[in-house]
Amino acid sequence: VQARSLRVEAARGGRRLDLLIEGATLVNVHTREVYPADIGIAGGHIVSVSEHGWQGPEPLARLRAQGKFALPGFVDSHVHIESSMMSPAGFAAAVLPRGTTTVVIDPHEVANVAGLRGVRYMLEATARLPLRVAVQAPSCVPAVPALETAGAEFGPHEVAEMLSWERVIGLAEVMDFVGVIDQSERMSRILDVALSQGQVVSGHCPGLRGPQLAAYIVGGPDSDHEGLGREELLEKLRLGMTVEARVSSFSESVSQLGAIVRETGCVPPNLVMCTDDIFPPDLARCGHMDHVVRQAIAAGFAPLDAIRAATLHGAQRHRLYDRGAIAPGRLADIVLVNDLAAPRADEVLVGGQLVAKAGQMVAPLPLSPHSFESENTVHLPCRPTPEGLALRARSGRRSEAVRVLSVARGQPRTLETIELPVRDGIVDVSAAPEVCLLAILERHGRAGGRGLGLVKGLGLQRGAVASTIAHDSHNLLVLGRTPHDMAMAAAQVASWGGGLCCVEGGRMLAGVPLPIAGLMSPKPLLELAPLVDALNHALEGLGMQGPNPLSAVFGLALPVIPHYAVTDRGLVDTVKQTFIPLWADED
Amino acid sequence: VQARSLRVEAARGGRRLDLLIEGATLVNVHTREVYPADIGIAGGHIVSVSEHGWQGPEPLARLRAQGKFALPGFVDSHVHIESSMMSPAGFAAAVLPRGTTTVVIDPHEVANVAGLRGVRYMLEATARLPLRVAVQAPSCVPAVPALETAGAEFGPHEVAEMLSWERVIGLAEVMDFVGVIDQSERMSRILDVALSQGQVVSGHCPGLRGPQLAAYIVGGPDSDHEGLGREELLEKLRLGMTVEARVSSFSESVSQLGAIVRETGCVPPNLVMCTDDIFPPDLARCGHMDHVVRQAIAAGFAPLDAIRAATLHGAQRHRLYDRGAIAPGRLADIVLVNDLAAPRADEVLVGGQLVAKAGQMVAPLPLSPHSFESENTVHLPCRPTPEGLALRARSGRRSEAVRVLSVARGQPRTLETIELPVRDGIVDVSAAPEVCLLAILERHGRAGGRGLGLVKGLGLQRGAVASTIAHDSHNLLVLGRTPHDMAMAAAQVASWGGGLCCVEGGRMLAGVPLPIAGLMSPKPLLELAPLVDALNHALEGLGMQGPNPLSAVFGLALPVIPHYAVTDRGLVDTVKQTFIPLWADED
Repeated sequence: VQARSLRVEAARGGRRLDLLIEGATLVNVHTREVYPADIGIAGGHIVSVSEHGWQGPEPLARLRAQGKFALPGFVDSHVHIESSMMSPAGFAAAVLPRGTTTVVIDPHEVANVAGLRGVRYMLEATARLPLRVAVQAPSCVPAVPALETAGAEFGPHEVAEMLSWERVIGLAEVMDFVGVIDQSERMSRILDVALSQGQVVSGHCPGLRGPQLAAYIVGGPDSDHEGLGREELLEKLRLGMTVEARVSSFSESVSQLGAIVRETGCVPPNLVMCTDDIFPPDLARCGHMDHVVRQAIAAGFAPLDAIRAATLHGAQRHRLYDRGAIAPGRLADIVLVNDLAAPRADEVLVGGQLVAKAGQMVAPLPLSPHSFESENTVHLPCRPTPEGLALRARSGRRSEAVRVLSVARGQPRTLETIELPVRDGIVDVSAAPEVCLLAILERHGRAGGRGLGLVKGLGLQRGAVASTIAHDSHNLLVLGRTPHDMAMAAAQVASWGGGLCCVEGGRMLAGVPLPIAGLMSPKPLLELAPLVDALNHALEGLGMQGPNPLSAVFGLALPVIPHYAVTDRGLVDTVKQTFIPLWADED
Repeated sequence: VQARSLRVEAARGGRRLDLLIEGATLVNVHTREVYPADIGIAGGHIVSVSEHGWQGPEPLARLRAQGKFALPGFVDSHVHIESSMMSPAGFAAAVLPRGTTTVVIDPHEVANVAGLRGVRYMLEATARLPLRVAVQAPSCVPAVPALETAGAEFGPHEVAEMLSWERVIGLAEVMDFVGVIDQSERMSRILDVALSQGQVVSGHCPGLRGPQLAAYIVGGPDSDHEGLGREELLEKLRLGMTVEARVSSFSESVSQLGAIVRETGCVPPNLVMCTDDIFPPDLARCGHMDHVVRQAIAAGFAPLDAIRAATLHGAQRHRLYDRGAIAPGRLADIVLVNDLAAPRADEVLVGGQLVAKAGQMVAPLPLSPHSFESENTVHLPCRPTPEGLALRARSGRRSEAVRVLSVARGQPRTLETIELPVRDGIVDVSAAPEVCLLAILERHGRAGGRGLGLVKGLGLQRGAVASTIAHDSHNLLVLGRTPHDMAMAAAQVASWGGGLCCVEGGRMLAGVPLPIAGLMSPKPLLELAPLVDALNHALEGLGMQGPNPLSAVFGLALPVIPHYAVTDRGLVDTVKQTFIPLWADED
């Protein structure tokens, strides 16, 4: 109250501004214009935008911005901080210098590991950061409860509790679209909680079209970031869904959206931008929301349209009416760039404070580690052994016809049947150079189960890779050509309390400890990215296809990706949501 | 819950639609496209929009719409129902056939008369109408408390109470912009209530520019419908204010906005549309939001942009996310028109029910009169007499130099000094053919005071006109050339419990009883409009300039119109907010 009065006084020239940004060229995301204007800041807010120069009393400070464009800070409409493999503070230090000032996060990775405590950690660890972090309540923890074992299960009660917390502003991507369309008990009750409060309900529905898509929207979720083809994206825009244009480490939709924008001559108000999942090397090399905006421009968006979608549209979507534009009354989150056609943040201000300059944080963030960060969350019933990871044949068999997950980049996963020899009672994959063993070890200290499967198409020819990042339950995933290498990689990762590890012939080639929930590292980006790069290079050395072979590994256990996956409970048909026997002669 | 499940089921083709609108050409306000699509409706909502035709089970009913365009129902972003001089039910019956399906009303006229009871009446009288009525809490009752006597005063307590009521969705036009900029106790506390709840705060700031305008926005209100000139409108759009393009009976801003849209090539997302105040004859002749849209198109808006602003933008502004587009999940409020370039509603559906066709309601509204409608709200201390309305000179004067309100259409009101003779102790205006007497009689049964003044420039040469519509306090206003005619007109209006009346030489020329709060009639539009027309014609016969001379009368007591007004307490400087003596030789 008092604060607002002081800002009003500063706006009318009755007291000194805290800061005047002078000589900038304003990017107006409301009128889609660009023109010179001085920007006056008081009490963390913009209080004046004057085309004719500030006429009031001498400001307390001035920032000369001649020759620079002033944009609103970018709003990332949907992102999982955990995918950066950094703690929230490390993530903030990585994205603020890129011009991202607001992120709407879905902490569902850490929620799958640590439940409500994990979500609380993300809130507490972001409470005092200069990055503005709004949280959506994870809706599908785990993705499909009957098919996998996570560290927690969220029902309507947990969702209601999260929605009562400060800075929790909606329901995060409802991935269980089958549950919405079929009105499953679980999804109906979770949606009831959010819809009855008038909350934003975000969606996730790859490939969904026609009546199924309409039913999904009618059920509540009204956004999507998974759409890929031109037809699907246009259908979703036409149906009024908020389409979250995405450039992630896995996927990008801005080129198709650029084509739509060029054809229709219109950037719809329901188009926003997001990063979803970005790995450390991509963050370091390409950037964050600035990269999304540059890719959108390269794909045919007018710069002003790309910037509008990445700022105002995102803020409006999430009902963050206090930001998204450089205008009186809004938070003073401002990015200065030199080139509007390929914007790169030069100076970044949050709440009127300079936080980054020339790609670097101006001051390091106060890193006061949260107690959660030192907890071990990897709880295996026993140390992984080669025997425990081998695929045992049925008794008396000399060979087995096995169902194998067949993977090809950008294609739905299919099943093939492959005949493999049996030696000493063990199915021997070494006979088929393109086939790997895949084991998912429950690691939350719950059932302690183990799902086994076979995979082809990833290219891994030798060695093994282990990961406690394994969407969405984040059990311990081990993929390899020999049970020995697999056991060593898994044991190494477990000893770190989580992480990534690549092994060949009994030797560790590369490793990334991720001790925070088995998902995140306390290291800053510039230390972490080379480790992840090294791991990817090691995997390429073992035959996996680049770039970023890790991305193919992380999704192998995800039971919402069509058409098949392997979870800690076994081989899964993700469309029918049922288990399938590994042996081709069983149904 | 149950209802949503049924809609989801209908959407996916699992049960019969209630209605299928087939063969229409869809106007897509998201993608700004026009293409053929069938529209499926179930449970009052749109559940399917299929470009390839509905493929599900046979719907319960079909509506053939070949050759017609389907638009979302219009959203009027700011309107005073009272200005239609009709009860809420009469208003609904007048605007629904025009395609207006949602109105955001500010009931501040009835609030000035009857306080919270008046607002409650508007809520209760609209609760069961097919028109969707959202209410903003009146913020400035009366407009300027120190300068006028209304039937009620609203402070933060009253505003908080209204905001707790269902269907009250924000704070209505904050007209006291001086109070906001100077952070008056009253406005600060009222704004605190609304802003602390995150409510939409609507504005009203004619002519405000530069630092004053910025201070107003920083203070809370972030919309305006009063802006007129190109420069002012563009400034407000640039500053991110929601500009409510208006075509009312008093004023229109769409032509200037059309010019801006043509120049910038962009209809900003913060441009919405409203009617504010429309008199019965204009409603009957021109229409309602359909007229605003046609005027916008005539002014240079592309039809799709005008429709988008009048639907989606308005819904978004008021956070009515369940409407504003023809898309799955939204309320089935749909207008079918034949001509996109000059849309006129052919069929109008609300919640999937046909409510109007070819400009007529399909069925009369159930009119169950509210008890408030039979209350008398005109409480004068005594019957008006010629003596009580005459301007008495100071003792011993043979003439008086009097300050006279000078009125010219479209110009701020100024003051002139005119020397008038005194006869029998009374200032005689008959000597100056262009000067009228103006009396404002407090009529709420409170102070019982009487403000007198003189006006020139209205053209009235004979007779008198009385009105209990006198913004915003709605005291009994009487304007005339002789105290006798004035007394008769005032007494007539009082005997009706409010209304309008025109008298010449002791004979009533025309009259409009408005017994509901002295503002509204129970009559339907087709009966009421001719009465208002007759009154306007009578005033033109007495010399007043047309069209619609009443509009000049209604604003004479409004102390927020620059630069002068006469209230029940006397002559007012509306800029300095002080009283001025009538006698030119006094300060």
